[in-house]
Amino acid sequence: MKQTLRMFDLAGAHEDVRFSPNCWRTRLALAHKGLPVQTVAWRFTEKDAIARSGQGKVPVLVAGEQWLHESWDIAEYLEDHHPEGPSLFGCANGRATARFVNQWASDVLHPAIARVVVPDIPAALHAKDQEYFRTTREAAFGRSFETIAGEREPALAALRQTVTPLRNLLQHQPYVAGAAPAYADHAVFGAFQWARIITPLALVAPDDPVAAWVDRMLDAYGGLARRARLAYAA
Amino acid sequence: MKQTLRMFDLAGAHEDVRFSPNCWRTRLALAHKGLPVQTVAWRFTEKDAIARSGQGKVPVLVAGEQWLHESWDIAEYLEDHHPEGPSLFGCANGRATARFVNQWASDVLHPAIARVVVPDIPAALHAKDQEYFRTTREAAFGRSFETIAGEREPALAALRQTVTPLRNLLQHQPYVAGAAPAYADHAVFGAFQWARIITPLALVAPDDPVAAWVDRMLDAYGGLARRARLAYAA
Repeated sequence: MKQTLRMFDLAGAHEDVRFSPNCWRTRLALAHKGLPVQTVAWRFTEKDAIARSGQGKVPVLVAGEQWLHESWDIAEYLEDHHPEGPSLFGCANGRATARFVNQWASDVLHPAIARVVVPDIPAALHAKDQEYFRTTREAAFGRSFETIAGEREPALAALRQTVTPLRNLLQHQPYVAGAAPAYADHAVFGAFQWARIITPLALVAPDDPVAAWVDRMLDAYGGLARRARLAYAA
Repeated sequence: MKQTLRMFDLAGAHEDVRFSPNCWRTRLALAHKGLPVQTVAWRFTEKDAIARSGQGKVPVLVAGEQWLHESWDIAEYLEDHHPEGPSLFGCANGRATARFVNQWASDVLHPAIARVVVPDIPAALHAKDQEYFRTTREAAFGRSFETIAGEREPALAALRQTVTPLRNLLQHQPYVAGAAPAYADHAVFGAFQWARIITPLALVAPDDPVAAWVDRMLDAYGGLARRARLAYAA
């Protein structure tokens, strides 16, 4: 029996602007599994709403009495508890190596994209999140938003260098997971969707194989990601 | 019927010093499949010996009339032509995501390790390779070996940063491919084995999860990699 899943999903000033890379991983994994989900708009400062998860970040997935967090752990939960849907990993080896891809995206790609998009995030945020966001992110970066904004051009060049292994991979196969998208794609694409929702700036050149893959991912799952509301159009 | 496989394997001044990261990928993949191989010591300048492969780099695997090259393509060949041995990838999704790991190792990890180990390579090389190696590598780096040697300390710090996703992954699982090593491990470990054979310098701190994984890989396949002759002990 399918229970109704609920997911706390980071939202901007407009509640339909959903821009978290980690939440997008989970949205795509749910779509991959064919699992309907009721998303709940959530802002950074609404820690109380997700306190039952035992921590303060989204995605948080509520499955009956279980409050799950961490996008990777949620993906493993979905794979293990919903074997009836298409596999997110293919096999145990596929799961393990997808975790490397996921880790690369979190540890290398997210910081590289953040240096490009962070200056545009405040314009998308709800008023009550402004102070929290600036304080936590400036501490993480060790410099002000104004300084980061001034480094955008070298940050973009560095990002295009950072995606080299992804670019070279996509010259051989249409998706990170092979012939069709799976969680290795969700893990990486979440970051590109984050950037796309926040800024009209092109992260990669139009003729970059990464751009064509982003386009395919926007079309996947009935165009789920393409339909997302953009912050700068809101 | 198993045919005898032959592999051209990069050798140093001493013919038992085999230090190519890409050749180690293939050696481990062959061991994983349980396929015996006759390796042929080969030096950089012996292009004629492998001309039938249509290019000038090793590994080159000779399987009957076929001359295969490129470590990734050889791995796929072994997986497809020797389904009787343990799988290198587990499934199609595992193969595709292992290719990302392989690409990351080639595009990101190899250059980062090269900046640390290249100054020690000439001491390991056969006399006839000295000029070729210096000319091609100094052109690739855009600076002299002496300059690279002077940058070793920051190069080592950068390398330890580069392996962040590998380090974080290995805090969750013993091998890149999960519970047991497979090609995703061979693809990455080849580079650590290259460094280990060339230099006694520790690439990572002893308490780094990467160091413990390197140790497990040295023990894998009956200690194949651990038995390798070290250039500085030769």
